[in-house]
Amino acid sequence: MGSVLLIAVMLQATAAAPASPDDAAQVRAVLDAQVKAWNRGNVSAFMQGYWNSPETEFVGSSGIIRGWRPVLNRYKKTYPDRAAMGHLDFSDLEVTMLGSDAAVVVGRFHLKRQNDAPTGVFTLIFRKFPDGWKIIHDHTSQTTAPVTTGEKNP
Amino acid sequence: MGSVLLIAVMLQATAAAPASPDDAAQVRAVLDAQVKAWNRGNVSAFMQGYWNSPETEFVGSSGIIRGWRPVLNRYKKTYPDRAAMGHLDFSDLEVTMLGSDAAVVVGRFHLKRQNDAPTGVFTLIFRKFPDGWKIIHDHTSQTTAPVTTGEKNP
Repeated sequence: MGSVLLIAVMLQATAAAPASPDDAAQVRAVLDAQVKAWNRGNVSAFMQGYWNSPETEFVGSSGIIRGWRPVLNRYKKTYPDRAAMGHLDFSDLEVTMLGSDAAVVVGRFHLKRQNDAPTGVFTLIFRKFPDGWKIIHDHTSQTTAPVTTGEKNP
Repeated sequence: MGSVLLIAVMLQATAAAPASPDDAAQVRAVLDAQVKAWNRGNVSAFMQGYWNSPETEFVGSSGIIRGWRPVLNRYKKTYPDRAAMGHLDFSDLEVTMLGSDAAVVVGRFHLKRQNDAPTGVFTLIFRKFPDGWKIIHDHTSQTTAPVTTGEKNP
């Protein structure tokens, strides 16, 4: 009887469990790995952060792209070489757990390139898979706000 | 012993429960109500679809807006009258449950106005609250793809 009650309590714990603090750290680690992959010019390694599925989505001003491979192809087309890729940084990352196996991340990206510095905001939806947290949905918008640089505002 | 086992089974059902088919219908009903409110020029009723919280977010090309009231103010500023509001339509709605109390909706919006027809894509994150499903995060992008109208392509 005691052990059955224990099982009941364990099941309830699973049902109501808030995500462990580790989960948010694991989600951040995926993003860290993506930034590092990008900054060594490795788009394939960068793409490991996305769920390898035909259902994975990338949404932006050009519409909705569906599927891991089409998303990869978009990155390859938009950023054909190291100069186009520039140097990537994420900031203002805000991880919100939506349950024990889903999370949303809001943040900003900053690209430094020879001639420009595109910046914008993204919403990423992560799911937890047996092989870890992966992005299942990426909505990214380039922002139109002027970029403030240290040079111009000393 | 039998009843304790039953409790255990019930708890497990709660833990693993896929969202009921009703949940997706309830999420769609919130969006239907928003469209109807918009099209009768009632921004306050439209805003009932959003979680009334300082944490509610609207993300777009102008950046991140935080808080139900600032989001309301953005709508009021961007769409000051019925002419600016035009006639709203959503299409291609895709509801994906992220657990028993979270969902993501991807879709397209279409605004018909006297002189233009802005269109775009959105990602909405819903949570289930005691008073129903509410949008906690809205990321909307106007799309740059040309608008195809029936007039031009009969």
